[in-house]
Amino acid sequence: MPQLRKDIVTREWVILAKERAKRSSDFAQKDRIQPVQHFNAHCPFCLGNESLTPPELLAYRERGTKPNTPGWRVRVTPNKFSALDREGELNRKDIDIYDTMNGVGAHEVVIETPDHGKSIHNMEEKDVEEIIWAYCDRYNALREDPRLKYILVFKNHREEAGCSLAHPHSQVVATPVIPQKVWGKIKGVEQYKEYRGECVYCHILEHELANQERMISENGGFIACAPFASRSPFETWIIPKTHRSCFAKMSRFEVGEFGQILRETMLRLYLCLSDPPYNYTLLTAPCDSDMLDNFHWHLEIVPRLTTPAGFEIGTSIYINIVPPEDAAKYLREVEIPSNQTVIV
Amino acid sequence: MPQLRKDIVTREWVILAKERAKRSSDFAQKDRIQPVQHFNAHCPFCLGNESLTPPELLAYRERGTKPNTPGWRVRVTPNKFSALDREGELNRKDIDIYDTMNGVGAHEVVIETPDHGKSIHNMEEKDVEEIIWAYCDRYNALREDPRLKYILVFKNHREEAGCSLAHPHSQVVATPVIPQKVWGKIKGVEQYKEYRGECVYCHILEHELANQERMISENGGFIACAPFASRSPFETWIIPKTHRSCFAKMSRFEVGEFGQILRETMLRLYLCLSDPPYNYTLLTAPCDSDMLDNFHWHLEIVPRLTTPAGFEIGTSIYINIVPPEDAAKYLREVEIPSNQTVIV
Repeated sequence: MPQLRKDIVTREWVILAKERAKRSSDFAQKDRIQPVQHFNAHCPFCLGNESLTPPELLAYRERGTKPNTPGWRVRVTPNKFSALDREGELNRKDIDIYDTMNGVGAHEVVIETPDHGKSIHNMEEKDVEEIIWAYCDRYNALREDPRLKYILVFKNHREEAGCSLAHPHSQVVATPVIPQKVWGKIKGVEQYKEYRGECVYCHILEHELANQERMISENGGFIACAPFASRSPFETWIIPKTHRSCFAKMSRFEVGEFGQILRETMLRLYLCLSDPPYNYTLLTAPCDSDMLDNFHWHLEIVPRLTTPAGFEIGTSIYINIVPPEDAAKYLREVEIPSNQTVIV
Repeated sequence: MPQLRKDIVTREWVILAKERAKRSSDFAQKDRIQPVQHFNAHCPFCLGNESLTPPELLAYRERGTKPNTPGWRVRVTPNKFSALDREGELNRKDIDIYDTMNGVGAHEVVIETPDHGKSIHNMEEKDVEEIIWAYCDRYNALREDPRLKYILVFKNHREEAGCSLAHPHSQVVATPVIPQKVWGKIKGVEQYKEYRGECVYCHILEHELANQERMISENGGFIACAPFASRSPFETWIIPKTHRSCFAKMSRFEVGEFGQILRETMLRLYLCLSDPPYNYTLLTAPCDSDMLDNFHWHLEIVPRLTTPAGFEIGTSIYINIVPPEDAAKYLREVEIPSNQTVIV
């Protein structure tokens, strides 16, 4: 019998179609792993091609090197094909019954490494930490702009996940509205707190640590687990053990721990599913967060292994063919190589 | 400058990235149109292969022909790989902090034609009408079951839209819960009515008819238009001019009009975009609709021409690169051939 499960934050149901259940090997297309290229002369994100992007907003670089020249390790620039404009007034207005606003906001690219062929799973931990620092620094800079209400950091990996440039990069988008989906989560968190007197994510954390069957890994500050109501096969969340509404307030020590578990989780997914396409989103409180201290930031990783269709579009109920308990077991059992350099 | 637009029902924003705007020809992959095959010996939905599906629940067939044999024009069977079970109790229960329920429901397949190579756009109108009658008949039959709270009719076309079998078919899924997405629309409709005293869809209808710039076509009972806050390029809605919460209460005359505009709209999309992948969903009131007479049923067609990525997943704000006014113009200007038989 299939099972319906409810996401306790969003109240969305998912259908676990256990009878259709698949194993990790059904998704691991070995031919996805191809020899990597460390430099591509036409890639705007490769070392030496800095002039192919808009001028950098931030770079962590070797001492004495100049902006927009080689010497950087992580580099942030405006998106050349920005979905939103950095300048201008919101100018909210009605067009008869409808409601519009100027597309004011920010759309930035975090170039994670100068090496075209590296990826989070095969970087050194200190390099992953610098990517996270770039997320924090850009978040804190954009937060100063009172027109911006929400800032999302996300990453698309592979064409199937909407990625158009192979060079490893993440994106930061700041919108002049709080997205409905974010409101939904905030409302869920607040209602749970009213009802049970505790943060729902703290409660999830406690439950998953006690129960273990959906746990993937853990370090001092974070857990990685498969959510109870996973919408997609191998969906994975990284949740900080410390309740905090905004990721950009992490301490240096916590950034280190987050870098460690992020790298390890990406490596588990890479090895288990042969470099799958995925999206990850860093969910955090809206910018005006004085009244929103209830939120508990976390990272959601969604491998793109199945295609949502009419049923998901019409109902937002997802049909998931891999129970999260199975997914967690597969990911937990991945053997992490001790020598990082062997991983392509 | 990009523009933000709000869906007045769901309150979701979309970003119209006009600077990235594309034309219909950018999406029309001519090689998608291949010679059609009218019979496939391995296809479970082809004529003569009736034994390859579970026994039929409904068929419109020639007089004197027996169930589960040739002679049918439209045939409905349970889905062989059903996501939900037809039998059993709901047995809702808590697993510690989480909430679950047995996956009780229905999952049926509407085989639209015995001809493997036909499609709604090149059928005769009376054949399209029979598909709609099958939707109505199955809806009304499933509605008798008090365990079922919502019934969605939908169609997936092409692999990119999550379709696994090429033979033209739609699906009917009945769930034991009202999906959150449906609640969101119902709430939007109710709030609009409280605020403005009118049905939001009646208001949209009136506005689009007066304004014309997003209109695609019209007949006595329906309009086809591009919605103001289209989430995807060439999104198209078919809205009945008569306010009614449930599609399955249409009169015979209205079914005829709906069949006409559905066929014509699918033909416009086919010709304009070279047989694009799409999903359509028939949005209607929940089964217990006494208190939900406010709803106004309609059909939403979403061509799958771009890939939603991390930004859409994290925010549910879609970035659309084709303004609906342009999409409507392209679709409106398609020349509809007078002789139906020339269309493959």
